[in-house]
Amino acid sequence: MIDLDLIGIGTGNADHLTRQAEAAMNAADLILLPRKGDAKSDLIDLRRTLCATALTRPVRIVEFDLPVRAATGAYLAAVGDWHDAIAATWAAQIAEHLPQGGRLALLVWGDPSLYDSTLRIADRLRADGMALHVRVIPGITSLQALTAAHAIPLNLLGAPVVITTGRRLRDHGWPEAADSVAVMLDGDCSFTTLAPQGVAIWWGAYLGMPHEALIAGSLADVADEIVERRAALRAEHGWIMDIYLLRRPARP
Amino acid sequence: MIDLDLIGIGTGNADHLTRQAEAAMNAADLILLPRKGDAKSDLIDLRRTLCATALTRPVRIVEFDLPVRAATGAYLAAVGDWHDAIAATWAAQIAEHLPQGGRLALLVWGDPSLYDSTLRIADRLRADGMALHVRVIPGITSLQALTAAHAIPLNLLGAPVVITTGRRLRDHGWPEAADSVAVMLDGDCSFTTLAPQGVAIWWGAYLGMPHEALIAGSLADVADEIVERRAALRAEHGWIMDIYLLRRPARP
Repeated sequence: MIDLDLIGIGTGNADHLTRQAEAAMNAADLILLPRKGDAKSDLIDLRRTLCATALTRPVRIVEFDLPVRAATGAYLAAVGDWHDAIAATWAAQIAEHLPQGGRLALLVWGDPSLYDSTLRIADRLRADGMALHVRVIPGITSLQALTAAHAIPLNLLGAPVVITTGRRLRDHGWPEAADSVAVMLDGDCSFTTLAPQGVAIWWGAYLGMPHEALIAGSLADVADEIVERRAALRAEHGWIMDIYLLRRPARP
Repeated sequence: MIDLDLIGIGTGNADHLTRQAEAAMNAADLILLPRKGDAKSDLIDLRRTLCATALTRPVRIVEFDLPVRAATGAYLAAVGDWHDAIAATWAAQIAEHLPQGGRLALLVWGDPSLYDSTLRIADRLRADGMALHVRVIPGITSLQALTAAHAIPLNLLGAPVVITTGRRLRDHGWPEAADSVAVMLDGDCSFTTLAPQGVAIWWGAYLGMPHEALIAGSLADVADEIVERRAALRAEHGWIMDIYLLRRPARP
């Protein structure tokens, strides 16, 4: 039997850790840390730092190479194959390092509920017959780090919010359900495809981290600045994670 | 000058506190705790407990009576008047207890960005001429506590999510923008107004607290159970806070 704790760790700021997350890390028999290739070496460094600061007892930590997603083919199929490969990698690590079962912890960027696939990968292990009990420890998401950094609410008073992806914003335009739209997983600055009149944007990259970058303003005024800043930061650091909130005036 | 820290404290579980929240509480010159009337006395007790467990140095704590929202009249107008009254109450507390300025902390249920009005109330003080610097410390929301408790993702793979209110779900039906809909602030079990076929629901009340209650299943099967359980729990505790996620099968 494997007790799998999926621990939300926030967005790279060790102070995002909750007491619950620290307790779960210290209760683990094994913490698996994924290596995602050279460009994102900051991300494993951050996880190592979190372990160093949060662990108050010796916990075994094993690093493993995360499979790489195929860059070709249909998006959903490529993601499905990738998750299969990650599930196989987890299974191999578990077989090697927890052959008698035990408590395994994985440190999940942000929160395991939001645009993260560890829950779906755990489902694959269960479907393959592994006796697996999953516990989720919530963590601060990049969306919360964004609104906190700009000191803004996510929603207008009593009004809804859509959380969506850059891909969907580009393909489907502004979702009619809400005047506030949070956009994640956008590698293409999809806000540039919108008519900017009357739209405000609050953008942030590397949220919670020392090199956090923030830009806010009317979309007409700051769209170009965000595109340029994003490209420069990505070139400088070798990777970028960013997110933004769009708001149009409330409609009756 | 007032440095106002709006500190997200999670949903009543002291272990939801982040390191950042604990540091901000300990850095305060004054923590204001709102009393919300007898029925919700649990809520001030929880805040008192958080202070007792998180503070490692003596910080002045002052409790004050939160104005009550008018139960009559148009909803948005009543909320506007209520926020004006809360702003006036904050201003009076600040004038009395921090006349020379200083660092004021308010403990915000969940996260200050999500269906919370402390940021809007702070805007009123600024508009009235108070020199106010606002810092937001993100906290675990009830939405994250819900998905964690059920060990489910908020979104389907690469798909959007709508966060909305019970009132809007009742008035506007299922928002077409998404197959996953999180509903907050619903005192009326508005899910009963939907056609239940094919819809799944994950419901939770008192999330993160010792008397946390969870129900999940197909809406057709469990809607009545949730309505009954909710009424019984509300009668038992004198108050209830609940939230739910609805999901329909993905559409092409």
